[in-house]
Amino acid sequence: MSTTPNPTEAEETQEQLDRVLSAAADCTWSQTSPHTRADALAAVADALDARSDALVREALRETGLPEARLTGELTRTTVQLRMFAEELRDGSYLRIALDRADPDFALGARPDLRRWLIPVGPVLVYAASNFPFAFSVAGGDTASALAAGCPVVLKAHPGHPETSRLTAETVLTALRESGAPEGTFALITGRQAGVSALRDPRVAAGAFTGSVTGGRALFDIASSRQDPIPFFGELGSINPAVVTAGAERESAEQIAAGFVGSFTLGAGQFCTKPGILLLPSGSELPKRIAELARDVPAARMLTSAIAERYRETTAQLCELDGVEVLVRGTEEPDPSGVARVSPTVLHAGGASELLTETALLEENFGPFAVIAEYSSDEELRSVLAAVPGSLTVTVHAADDPDSDERRSLRDLVALAAAGSGRIVFGQWPTGVAVTPAQQHGGPYPATTAASTTSVGTAAIDRFLRPVSYQNAPEFLLPEALRESNPLGLPRSTHQPGASQRWTAPQQ
Amino acid sequence: MSTTPNPTEAEETQEQLDRVLSAAADCTWSQTSPHTRADALAAVADALDARSDALVREALRETGLPEARLTGELTRTTVQLRMFAEELRDGSYLRIALDRADPDFALGARPDLRRWLIPVGPVLVYAASNFPFAFSVAGGDTASALAAGCPVVLKAHPGHPETSRLTAETVLTALRESGAPEGTFALITGRQAGVSALRDPRVAAGAFTGSVTGGRALFDIASSRQDPIPFFGELGSINPAVVTAGAERESAEQIAAGFVGSFTLGAGQFCTKPGILLLPSGSELPKRIAELARDVPAARMLTSAIAERYRETTAQLCELDGVEVLVRGTEEPDPSGVARVSPTVLHAGGASELLTETALLEENFGPFAVIAEYSSDEELRSVLAAVPGSLTVTVHAADDPDSDERRSLRDLVALAAAGSGRIVFGQWPTGVAVTPAQQHGGPYPATTAASTTSVGTAAIDRFLRPVSYQNAPEFLLPEALRESNPLGLPRSTHQPGASQRWTAPQQ
Repeated sequence: MSTTPNPTEAEETQEQLDRVLSAAADCTWSQTSPHTRADALAAVADALDARSDALVREALRETGLPEARLTGELTRTTVQLRMFAEELRDGSYLRIALDRADPDFALGARPDLRRWLIPVGPVLVYAASNFPFAFSVAGGDTASALAAGCPVVLKAHPGHPETSRLTAETVLTALRESGAPEGTFALITGRQAGVSALRDPRVAAGAFTGSVTGGRALFDIASSRQDPIPFFGELGSINPAVVTAGAERESAEQIAAGFVGSFTLGAGQFCTKPGILLLPSGSELPKRIAELARDVPAARMLTSAIAERYRETTAQLCELDGVEVLVRGTEEPDPSGVARVSPTVLHAGGASELLTETALLEENFGPFAVIAEYSSDEELRSVLAAVPGSLTVTVHAADDPDSDERRSLRDLVALAAAGSGRIVFGQWPTGVAVTPAQQHGGPYPATTAASTTSVGTAAIDRFLRPVSYQNAPEFLLPEALRESNPLGLPRSTHQPGASQRWTAPQQ
Repeated sequence: MSTTPNPTEAEETQEQLDRVLSAAADCTWSQTSPHTRADALAAVADALDARSDALVREALRETGLPEARLTGELTRTTVQLRMFAEELRDGSYLRIALDRADPDFALGARPDLRRWLIPVGPVLVYAASNFPFAFSVAGGDTASALAAGCPVVLKAHPGHPETSRLTAETVLTALRESGAPEGTFALITGRQAGVSALRDPRVAAGAFTGSVTGGRALFDIASSRQDPIPFFGELGSINPAVVTAGAERESAEQIAAGFVGSFTLGAGQFCTKPGILLLPSGSELPKRIAELARDVPAARMLTSAIAERYRETTAQLCELDGVEVLVRGTEEPDPSGVARVSPTVLHAGGASELLTETALLEENFGPFAVIAEYSSDEELRSVLAAVPGSLTVTVHAADDPDSDERRSLRDLVALAAAGSGRIVFGQWPTGVAVTPAQQHGGPYPATTAASTTSVGTAAIDRFLRPVSYQNAPEFLLPEALRESNPLGLPRSTHQPGASQRWTAPQQ
């Protein structure tokens, strides 16, 4: 993204920022019970629903995204909040483990040990440009951090400042009315404040969705602090898609339409946009894809900064040697001042070209895709292995492949797992279900923390860390760990004697 | 630790290192089933047990640690291996989650999604100086990484090179005989090779136990790679211990003896050594502790480098203004050439002195402890809040405190949880049980990854990352995720309709 100052990023004074961070650090939100937090999150969801007309109207004005998309995204946002509320009521996210004292333990007498997860502390969340609700002020990062018990300091995205302000106001009021302590949530808007906050010892973790450049710069700050903190950045992903010859034979038209629909959805401004399509040599699909892409109307980009960067990157990539421009998108002015663009599709030729023209393997955020053709399984595999870490890999194969095809598909899927967090079969990667089995993450540069997800219930894990209590008197244990289990939380218990089998067999 | 070259750190050539890393990267260990890996780990444990006499004899010669300690540590090592084997047979560590396809999902039709954890790739493990078995070649990091399915490249510690070589040979033979593929495990010894390997794209994660200086340097390398990788470093910890007036009244002698026993155990060379003791103002304990500490015989330090650093740091701390030297330890030569030292105890005066003399808040690895006295709960809390992140906090309180004391103890425990990974009540932090509820980790500088543990079964989590399969045909799913569940693994399943309650109530 652009680094020029933006008038919508009003800077906090050092004093204002200091107040925000102190309030977060001193906040007792972490001491509230999971049920209390569940009620508060549900109250936030209700408040957002109650204000949905005003919120969607403002987002419509600021982002130019279609109304149905914004309404759906707000629903996703409130569903996420309620889903985390449910996780809190269930309680298994705390992974409570109890080891009973065991005088005969294999390694000598073992004390009573009780382990659970506690919130890491204040989380600094950077809102995304491309989801004014679901990855913004009250989005998935905020919901999962609040659920974990972490106060949230939210750096608003300049692409939708009023939507952010209105959402924050709604969140703050709902939290306050449901009894959440001061400091549980705060909005900041300054770019410099967003950087200073990350350097501040009162901040315990960062979460970010955005560009590789911006995300890496923040990751480097978080990692080079005197006390490094975790930084959960979701940066850039090329999301390769592979079509086999068998799949093309069976469903060429569906594949062409599906691909064009997916890479142009939301003007190509989704993290999961399939940016590269790998086709069997001699495929007829490029022609059909070009036809369909030409019919996609221009759509407004999210911000001028994104539009500018897209314009430059696209122009550079179209100029690359050996690249055929199948469709050259147009750019039109929009009353908002942010450009409207129509899709661009390049054909790189043989897939191996991608191994040398690595610029084509980097995300170009917008309605842009690259097609390449592979002439052997080996070529396909070598290209897939060279693709940088991605959120997703998509595979379209025949419904009932023969045994040779199955073998090579298995190799392909192993490579896909090594390089991504989600493998999509016969569908397209855009549209990310918010559920327990979802994984939205992947090796760098897809994310800076491949072992975590930013979508789905497992997203809460990012903001928790374990603490064990050894030989604690009942009155000093957190309620969750007391013998009487007053909160009725699920636990796994490890009984004395259970470990005898760990010792060596008598010889 | 010292940075002078060590003759026992024989450098690999670039070609040798390249072969090791290629073998790890190409290794199919990650593709083996959990049961296969369980058998292999158990075989390694059996092989170590079968060779225990030779291993202990070599470690005795190289480290000078007491035989009973070494025998116990080797048992711990094999117990750890068998414990991870058991985790693998149980399978719940894979956290398999299945979301059934749901056409009526709250946010639109939901595909079939199946999530599990896969190994991250080759792990570079740096062996510790102070545990020639349990945190060395076949120690907890190696056992948990191998269990996860990650090939291990082990950088040996120069403090016990022959023990390392002999252990590695035993591990390699056992792995080979149990059918593990080439590249599953390798030993390297070169200091430069250990650094080069961390920079190599074929290495996916690092694990380390050692000093703050060394660990931070390696963390910085891992974080500043073009593709940053997770680095699980267990660095330095001061492990504060607090005694209340009530506890001293009830059990002064036990506390004095327990403290001296704990901070001098293994010549004070444990990560969990209690380095600071906070006593109520006017306590009689310092006098008694000094008496007991004077009676502790000198013990050999682990390596010359550690002894040298300990000598320098101790001399500096003894010279600090306002510090009273209660016991000044002696240093004697040992036939091994590594010095033997007896305990040193300082009295810092009022606890608040620690807020200005922050050198006293840093780990001094060896038989050294600092005592300070607090005159109010407030002073105690402010000092505890200033202690850098620790592995443990220890609390000794009266058996049945009154309600005021309970309140202040609760505040104390909340602070302890914020600053550490384990809170120990009425016992001492050295001696770390290897069990499911154990937490051996804590905020920086105790570790570089406070959300993980390097002891106990949860240590396996460090080397896994999630991958989801969307809409996959049965034949392309890993066995673990197939509908028929051929491996019989535990799973949580999320049925259609289960999420209807996430939607907003009708208004």
